[in-house]
Order: sequence, then C-alpha cells, then structure tokens
Amino acid sequence: MHHVLRFFALLGILASLIVSLTFSQQPYDLLAQKIAREALVSNKAYDMLNELCTKVGTRLSGSAGAAKAVVWGKKTMEELGFENVHLEPVMVPHWTRGKEEKGFIFFPDGKREKINITALGGSIATPAQGIVAEVIEVKSFDEVRALGAKAKGKIIFFNRPMDRALFSTGAAYGGAVGQRGRGAVEAAAVGGVAALVRSMTTRLDDVPHTGAMNYVDSIKKVPTAAISTIGAERLSKLLIGGKHIQVYLKLSAETLPDVESANVIGELRGTEKPEEVIVIGGHLDSWDKGQGAHDDGTGVVQSIEALRLLKSLGVKPKRTIRAVLFMNEENGLRGGAAYAAKNRPGEKHIAAIESDAGGFTPRGFGVSDSLAYLKIYQWASIFSFMGADKIQRGGGGADISPLMRNGVVGIGLNVDGHRYFDYHHSDHDTIDKVNERELSLGAAAMSILAYMIAQEGL
Amino acid sequence: MHHVLRFFALLGILASLIVSLTFSQQPYDLLAQKIAREALVSNKAYDMLNELCTKVGTRLSGSAGAAKAVVWGKKTMEELGFENVHLEPVMVPHWTRGKEEKGFIFFPDGKREKINITALGGSIATPAQGIVAEVIEVKSFDEVRALGAKAKGKIIFFNRPMDRALFSTGAAYGGAVGQRGRGAVEAAAVGGVAALVRSMTTRLDDVPHTGAMNYVDSIKKVPTAAISTIGAERLSKLLIGGKHIQVYLKLSAETLPDVESANVIGELRGTEKPEEVIVIGGHLDSWDKGQGAHDDGTGVVQSIEALRLLKSLGVKPKRTIRAVLFMNEENGLRGGAAYAAKNRPGEKHIAAIESDAGGFTPRGFGVSDSLAYLKIYQWASIFSFMGADKIQRGGGGADISPLMRNGVVGIGLNVDGHRYFDYHHSDHDTIDKVNERELSLGAAAMSILAYMIAQEGL
Repeated sequence: MHHVLRFFALLGILASLIVSLTFSQQPYDLLAQKIAREALVSNKAYDMLNELCTKVGTRLSGSAGAAKAVVWGKKTMEELGFENVHLEPVMVPHWTRGKEEKGFIFFPDGKREKINITALGGSIATPAQGIVAEVIEVKSFDEVRALGAKAKGKIIFFNRPMDRALFSTGAAYGGAVGQRGRGAVEAAAVGGVAALVRSMTTRLDDVPHTGAMNYVDSIKKVPTAAISTIGAERLSKLLIGGKHIQVYLKLSAETLPDVESANVIGELRGTEKPEEVIVIGGHLDSWDKGQGAHDDGTGVVQSIEALRLLKSLGVKPKRTIRAVLFMNEENGLRGGAAYAAKNRPGEKHIAAIESDAGGFTPRGFGVSDSLAYLKIYQWASIFSFMGADKIQRGGGGADISPLMRNGVVGIGLNVDGHRYFDYHHSDHDTIDKVNERELSLGAAAMSILAYMIAQEGL
Repeated sequence: MHHVLRFFALLGILASLIVSLTFSQQPYDLLAQKIAREALVSNKAYDMLNELCTKVGTRLSGSAGAAKAVVWGKKTMEELGFENVHLEPVMVPHWTRGKEEKGFIFFPDGKREKINITALGGSIATPAQGIVAEVIEVKSFDEVRALGAKAKGKIIFFNRPMDRALFSTGAAYGGAVGQRGRGAVEAAAVGGVAALVRSMTTRLDDVPHTGAMNYVDSIKKVPTAAISTIGAERLSKLLIGGKHIQVYLKLSAETLPDVESANVIGELRGTEKPEEVIVIGGHLDSWDKGQGAHDDGTGVVQSIEALRLLKSLGVKPKRTIRAVLFMNEENGLRGGAAYAAKNRPGEKHIAAIESDAGGFTPRGFGVSDSLAYLKIYQWASIFSFMGADKIQRGGGGADISPLMRNGVVGIGLNVDGHRYFDYHHSDHDTIDKVNERELSLGAAAMSILAYMIAQEGL
C-alpha cells in the first residue's frame, strides 16, 4: 500500500511542478517578496493610517470629518505622484447622532442604572424627554411576531448573540445582524415604541457597537439603539421570570439633507492596455466611533499603499491599476453605486479588489467568479511565503458589489478575522488595535495580486 | 498539455483520497470541530488567563508571584478533576530587579533627558550612585571587538534592530537577541563599563523589553540594561557625527540564593497504554513586566484547557496526556531540565507539545522528528477548518528541549507571530492584548493533536 501512495504522491508533486513551470512563476515570486519587504520596512501604510486616524478622525458620510478625509485622500495620492488623481462627486446621506444619548434601567423601586447605548445609524430621535417603556426580550423575528398585543407600547429588546462557536466571525455577524438592520421595523410592526439591539460582537464589553439600520415606508418609524453586550446580559438577567423592567432611552439622532461628497481616485496607468482597469479599494467613510481604524481606514491606506509599493519599486503594470477610496459604504453605498454607474468611454474593468475586513494578517483572497478563481488559484503559491495563499471561491466587498453586478470580477482580501468584531463600529476601533506588520502585509498581498492581474489578465 | 495536467491532478486527488480512506479521518474531523466549539463557547482558557494575569500577576522565578502561580496551577488542575495532580520541586534562580532603575542622557551643556531603560535579567547592579559614561554605538560584536582602546570606560550601546523585513518575527528576534544575551560580556571584554541594548521589538515604542543575559566566568561582570526602541533611536541620532554624549544608568538588580519552586503537573490517564505519555505544556514563570500574558500565560492556560476540553467532552485517550506547567523557562530552564532528568520507572514519553509563542491564531505545528512529521502531516486536514493545517519540519520549545535531547519528539504550536514582539517581555504584555478566540483555538489545536497522538501513536 505504501508504494502505491508514494507513487500517487510523486505524480501529484510532478503535476504541480508542471503547472509552475508552464506558468513561469519565478519572476513573480521574487517580486512578491520585494513588495512585502518594502511594505514591512517602509511601514508607510501605518504612517498613513496614523494620519487618517489621528488628524482626520472619524468620517461619517456628510460630516466635516468625511470632507476632511476626501481632501486628505486626494492630497496623499497627489504627493505620492499617482496619475489621474481626481474626485468623483457623489451625493451622500447625512445622518447625525446629535448631542445627547442616554439609557437607563428603571427599577420598580425608583432606582435607576445606567446602560451604555448608542443610536443605530439611520434611527430617528426619541421625543426630547425620551421614552420610558417596559422591555420585552426576544431572540428572533418569529418571537416578535408571536408577541401579539403584549408588544404594544413596549421596547423590544433583540438579544440574540453572535454565535461564538462559528470559526468565521463574519458568518457569526451574518447570523445576528438582521436584528440591527430590521429590528426597528419588526418592533414597530407589532406596536413596539423602540428597538434595543444587542451589540454585534462576540466579546463581553461595555461599549455599544453601532451600525446601519433601515426603515420601510409602510411601517411607522421608531427609534432604535445598540446596547453593549454587558448591558444586554445585565438586562436579560433582570428580565428572567418575566419581571417587569422599564428602560429609558434618549436619542437625538437626525437625518439632514444629502450632502455632496466624493470618491477619491488615483492610478498607475497601464503601459500596454491602459484601457483595461483593475480597481483596488476600501471605503473612506466610517462610523462616528473610535477612529474608524480597522473599518475601514486600513482598507483605504492599503489601497494607496498597494500602488505606492509598485511605483516605488519601479514596476510598470501593463494594465491600469486604480485605487478608489469609496465614500459612504456604511450607510448608503452611494460611492460604490456611483462609481459603477458612471459612463467611462473606452474603459473596461477587469477586476475589483476590496479590503474591508480589517487590517489583520492576510490569509488569501475570495474570488466571485469561477474562471477567475481557477486562474488565481494557480497563483496561490506566490502568496505562501506570507501565509496568504488560501484562494476561495466567493468573495468581493460591499463597495465593489455594484461593479460585480455589472459583470466585473470581485475579489475580497481575506484576513484573520478573530479580532474584527472586538472593535467594529465602536469606540474600540482605534489605531492602537492595528499591528503595523499585519497591515503592511495586507497591502503587499493586494499589490501583488493587482500587479499579476495587470500582467496576466483574468 | 491541459489533459496531462488534469490527469496528474486527478491522480494527486486520488492519492489524498486513499490516504484519508485508509486512515479513516472522519471521526477525528468531527471530534476536532466539537473540541474547537467547546473551546470557543466556554471561553474557559480566557477565564483562566484572566485569573492568572490579574490575581497572580507577574511570576519571575523565585518571586512571591511565582510561588502564588504554583499554588494557582495546582488548585486549578485539582478543581478540574485532573488525575495525579502534583508538584515536582525544582531549585530556581532568584534574580530581582530591585527598587530603582533610572536612565538619563547627559548633554554637554548640563541638561539631561530621561530614557526608559530596564535591567536585563541576570544583570548586576550599578554602584549605588549609578554610572555616568560616554556612549559608543555598535551594531555587531565585530564592531565592539574592533573598538580597541576607545572602548575603555565607555557604555557600549548595542543598536542593531530586529530585521523588520523578515516575515518571521522569530527569525528577526533570533538575528538580534545575541546582543542582549552576550552584550555585557562583549562590552566588558574591551573595557566597557556597561552594555545598553536596544529592546527586542520591531515596533517603535517607549517601554523597555527585558530578557535574559548571561555572564561568563572569565570576563568581568558589568551591568546591562535594555533601552526602549524610541530611546535607542533618539540616542543614536544624538551620536551622529561622533558626538560625545554621556549616559547615566542606575540599576539595583541582585541575584539572591536559589529558591525552591516547582513544575505543576496533572494528567488524563490513558485507558490502554497509560505508561505512554504525551506531555503538553507552557511555562508558568514570566518576566516581571506587564502580566506575562502572551509569555507564557497563554501557553499555561492552553495546556490546562487542552486536557479540560477532552475531559468535558467525555473523551478518554488511550495513552496518558499530561499537562506540565514548567517553572523557570525565562532565566534558567531549570524546570524543563528537571522534568526531563527525573527518573520515571515504567514510563515512556512519546511526544511533548509546547505553546510558547503567544496566544495568537494557531497556524499549525512544527515537529522535531522526520518520521513523526510525516505522520502528523497526514493529519493536517483535520486542522484546516481553523486554518491551523501548516505542519512544518523542525520545531519544539525551550521547556521541552531537554526532553527532546532525550529522544522525545518535540512539537511546537505555531501561531500568527506578527504581534508577539510588540508585547514580549515588556509592560505591554497584558491580558487586553489577548483575543479570547485566538487563545481558545490554540488550546483546541493542542487538544486535538495530543488526542490524536494518544490514539494513533507516533
């Protein structure tokens, strides 16, 4: 038996040898390592992120911070000598949290206890005096819908946690985030006066994690807020046995008229097929918490750095590689939509690569298209020196999803995701949570892939 | 050509199919996922680490903290119902930092500027009034040796950084840490009065990172300290052009008589071959900085958790799996040596697994022995669901190195190492730098591997 196994194993090795020989991978291997080296040694991605986080700060669409970020992005690309640096204007929503947010548990004996809450993005305000109502805890929309008359006048408390058991934190998020997006609608549909939603993190912490929610036209708008996971656990415990607990909520959020903002764009023009474009991007807007470091300051600086790395090494791509800093991913996706909708005569997009999963150690790429996947899969070993050689079928990113709907191959940078939701959309998302080496290697991985597509096509 | 490739690829797939069929991997796959699930959901490794970091704190060999840690380790294993829980006494060195450490740059005009320094482990004290001397910067031992008479009476400043360009931070550490271990000897050999060593981290930060140094009998002992990387950069800049800069150093370190301490041991007895033992361990001692979280609180709690996971799932290994919390890895390795030297009649160690690279996302294992490597390599896919399927030739750990010299197979848990030296041996090494999911998955990986060896042998 052992001889048979060895024979087959040998054949397998032979097969991969033949693949690598026919493809002539070696020049890319060497360049890839040069790119990673330059990224690690220069540490430019981190320097840029430090500027963006500390000098610009948070940059929610429509805010002064977002306007500052647009200026910063353009200036940064110009200083680096990118070609065709310009803004593409786009109207974006302008939601503001307002000055005051407060939450308390009111006990039957008149005592009260502070809970850490924050309005979900898009929520209306409470009345100026706040809302006081009894709380009903639910874990699913089915439970809400089954409440019937009991729900009337109540605050509906959505407390289904992200599933800690899943290896993919993204999957755990996907399994819980519906409560945030649609909780207010479901609450209002049964007569609830507000929705309070457990923060989207697997950790127990005492900061609320915000994020987008949506109303629908046919259902009354009620205010909605995130509660910290520690607050959610506390509240849930108090409710055991059907106890009657009241919560006070005060939100000052407001949706103002749309504001003009912009996608920020710069590129390295292709030497042979400049009309064929590879987009590489992240989103420039963030929530108004922390510093928007991992979401998505890291994607922004990695996209700039990916081009800078090629430029600084004197590498000239055959096709055009274009960095796009998309505006308004968090609460509208207007930038991504506008970029894809724009008429660009003579141009053809052949791929779009996005980094929007945090600036953590790169593990590989997810590819939206089967044929492109098979091609990139053959390049995997080029990324193995940095452990980023896992090429998966399926991927992309929110900002590039409109491009993908136009038939462009979408590619997402996949990273080690265990820490992402510790920080996501909260005051924890600050630059000190970013490791400069992990950030730089992500930029290098994007740079290498963009260059390979520019040379080899897809 | 394509058909040929497909044929070979098919054969490769066939070969791996046959391997997995003959090996019957499926029950292990299912169990592995159960183990990881229990680790993530229970979060017990993190809870234990939190206790060790906050209730015990730092635990340098010979200190009160180390004594407390021994009690904690034994009690923890007893409460978890491990078998044969006991201490194995060992005499350990007792070095203390003392009360006072100070460093200043003295400028020619009489001004002074604080630098953050800390004694290296094992250093003697300066005279009570401190040392003031001119500084000479070097990057290598060759440079020191070439100094000649110029070195006399000087403080030798070893300032070769860890190489940021290397993908492996361990390799970067290996390329620089000789300055820390042998700097004082090299400085004294040319008449220097002290050695000041750039901290072992790729980051620019302003805390010093300590670590072990050694004297040799034939060379005069001079005091030696680490300087923060920011301090090192500052000092280096001031020295440009051969400027004469003096540094003041005050260290109060002292080596006291050896102290009795212990390795802490507990096990799950094998049901079929209890005399065959798989050791799983980390080191219980730490430096006296931060909380000794990643170095090596994480290895300690992962070793305990690896056994607890099997026990809590009702899994009974055929061979004995023994958790060993080794004492004195940092400055003596006495625990590892004593464990290996002890006569254990009727017992045979077949493998030793160590976690001492930080509680980061597990990536795979390094195996010291070629045949064992080939066997474990066949199990790789069992770890792929958590991305820990990279099995490498070469590995082990310091504590298990004496066992390895006795012929026991040594295995190191390999993790994502980019952050390790941000914290290593410094005040940054605290529990807030540990992600509970990454920690738990490392424990799960160790648990799965230990169990597989217990069932399949090596």
